[in-house]
Amino acid sequence: MRTDDKRMIQALRRQPLDRPPFWYMRQAGRYLPEYREIRKNARNFLDFCYTPDLAVEVTLQPLRRYAMDAAILFSDILVIPDALGQKVEFREGEGPVLEPVRSVEALAGLDRARVLDHLGPVFETLGRLSREIPEETALIGFAGAPWTVAVYMVEGRGGTECGTARTWAYRDAEGFQQLIDLLVDATGDYLCQQVESGAEVIQLFDSWAGVLSESQFRRWVIEPNRRLVEILRARHPDVPVIGFPRNAGALYGEFIEATGVDGVSLDHGVPLDWIRDTVQPRCTPQGNLDNHLLIAGGAELDRAVEESLQTLSGGPSIFNLGHGILPSTPPEHVARVSEIIRGWSHGGT
Amino acid sequence: MRTDDKRMIQALRRQPLDRPPFWYMRQAGRYLPEYREIRKNARNFLDFCYTPDLAVEVTLQPLRRYAMDAAILFSDILVIPDALGQKVEFREGEGPVLEPVRSVEALAGLDRARVLDHLGPVFETLGRLSREIPEETALIGFAGAPWTVAVYMVEGRGGTECGTARTWAYRDAEGFQQLIDLLVDATGDYLCQQVESGAEVIQLFDSWAGVLSESQFRRWVIEPNRRLVEILRARHPDVPVIGFPRNAGALYGEFIEATGVDGVSLDHGVPLDWIRDTVQPRCTPQGNLDNHLLIAGGAELDRAVEESLQTLSGGPSIFNLGHGILPSTPPEHVARVSEIIRGWSHGGT
Repeated sequence: MRTDDKRMIQALRRQPLDRPPFWYMRQAGRYLPEYREIRKNARNFLDFCYTPDLAVEVTLQPLRRYAMDAAILFSDILVIPDALGQKVEFREGEGPVLEPVRSVEALAGLDRARVLDHLGPVFETLGRLSREIPEETALIGFAGAPWTVAVYMVEGRGGTECGTARTWAYRDAEGFQQLIDLLVDATGDYLCQQVESGAEVIQLFDSWAGVLSESQFRRWVIEPNRRLVEILRARHPDVPVIGFPRNAGALYGEFIEATGVDGVSLDHGVPLDWIRDTVQPRCTPQGNLDNHLLIAGGAELDRAVEESLQTLSGGPSIFNLGHGILPSTPPEHVARVSEIIRGWSHGGT
Repeated sequence: MRTDDKRMIQALRRQPLDRPPFWYMRQAGRYLPEYREIRKNARNFLDFCYTPDLAVEVTLQPLRRYAMDAAILFSDILVIPDALGQKVEFREGEGPVLEPVRSVEALAGLDRARVLDHLGPVFETLGRLSREIPEETALIGFAGAPWTVAVYMVEGRGGTECGTARTWAYRDAEGFQQLIDLLVDATGDYLCQQVESGAEVIQLFDSWAGVLSESQFRRWVIEPNRRLVEILRARHPDVPVIGFPRNAGALYGEFIEATGVDGVSLDHGVPLDWIRDTVQPRCTPQGNLDNHLLIAGGAELDRAVEESLQTLSGGPSIFNLGHGILPSTPPEHVARVSEIIRGWSHGGT
């Protein structure tokens, strides 16, 4: 099937559909027993991401169960700092730990020229996936947006307040800009190569966007995302881009206008009426079921899925969660949601 | 000075003012050397809160330096679980740790009837403060809103995702409602007694409001806050109430309408234009300088303070931060901001 005919692409181009496409962030992951089984075959998490045999297999696993309309490359946003030469480790039960970069001087140790070579296995995974996924399934490539990757690089781990990065960015905006510029360039190279390897859609994850003030959000979230959209458009004008400035609140609207994304992924705190009235007229919303409701299941889960489908049925949308699937999620709840969506029809063309 | 003539009260009643009142969340705290000095006199943090001599003194400390328009009772939102009979501990460098309450059965160990007696020292502190603060300064009492206190009670600590509480609330909404109801009742008793002891304004802190989905936000944030406003209004119709559903994003508007608060405290992610256009016509906004910019200081700090004053000058407002002052904040930055605000005049009456 041509890319143009896939449901996921049609939704991003605002074409009328009988039901929205669906996929789930972190649909390949620890909630699946077959994932936990194969995960044992790699010593550490980055090796796992860099082994195409394993990465292809775990990307395909959820598709076999639930036949989502999109597959997302199995990888991690921290492959960019790793490729640039920063020390990145994933510790069991603790998450990622990085040797922090906290000054302009420390940037000298990072090298954009290494990135494409270092990430060769990721491109191989994408190439194989583009041949192995079901023909109606769209293949999504992704990267972390610069602010979020910078948070990990500066804090040394994911931080709820991101205080060191935010304070650096206020105290020495010019210096911090150099880190962001490096990330825009390296991420631009990486994403273009992802498309050339088979990705048909790109998603930019800005998971820590919501901690910023208005002025910092404009400079460190909107502007770098806008530049990445521009870099992608220049080389691959037909590839849709989905932004995800998580927890942007009232700033989602400005993000959409200013970056020119085709789709925007929304966290579960965003009200459906607001999505319908504010987001849908401008770009394709993606989201935004609560991942904790997917754990809980039951009648409330059915109700929330149906309410989302109903409320957004007047325009384009992509069904997803507001954040990734959590490890304690019962796979049968994912099956149930997938079944409701596939059975849905609002009588479009 | 009569309560009615205090700048803070006038702002909450939407009376025109030459400059907005200002105070800072956590204005009494570890960033002040005189606070760190007196803190040594109590064995643990709850004892500190329950010793009127110490609590009165630390409440007054920042007023001597910066002459804010309001003093806020020095206390903690976890005095309510402590008063109800839950085990609460503050561990050095780790924050609060509670023996978790995770079932309806566990609620049997909690007793609303103990609350007012147990919190006698807090009321004594308020009584003394109402006599000892400068006459133009308003005295703010406060409590945690039920959802946020419930998060601590269920998780056993502050949690960035609040997963256990959210999942309980989805799986067994009736059971979780019993916990919320208990908190509404106990907090209502507590706040009315605060007013009777001298508090002239009440602020409700719902720090974890932003993690909830739309439907959970309505049930666990809006409805309990609305009931508390109602309880306070019934006994003390003239005491203004400020809500603070932190990180509510696009849901701040609905919160204001549905709860009937007089003021709403806004996190630093809320855009100033949106505050002017959406909040100011309905209630008095309070906020929302980034507490990390207060650490960083410099020209950007001056600019942000002036932009806030300018943007909100057409209606009522209270200057504050988007969250509490952090321990690493230089006291001279707080002095600088206070000086800019006191020197501000937009030519109102």
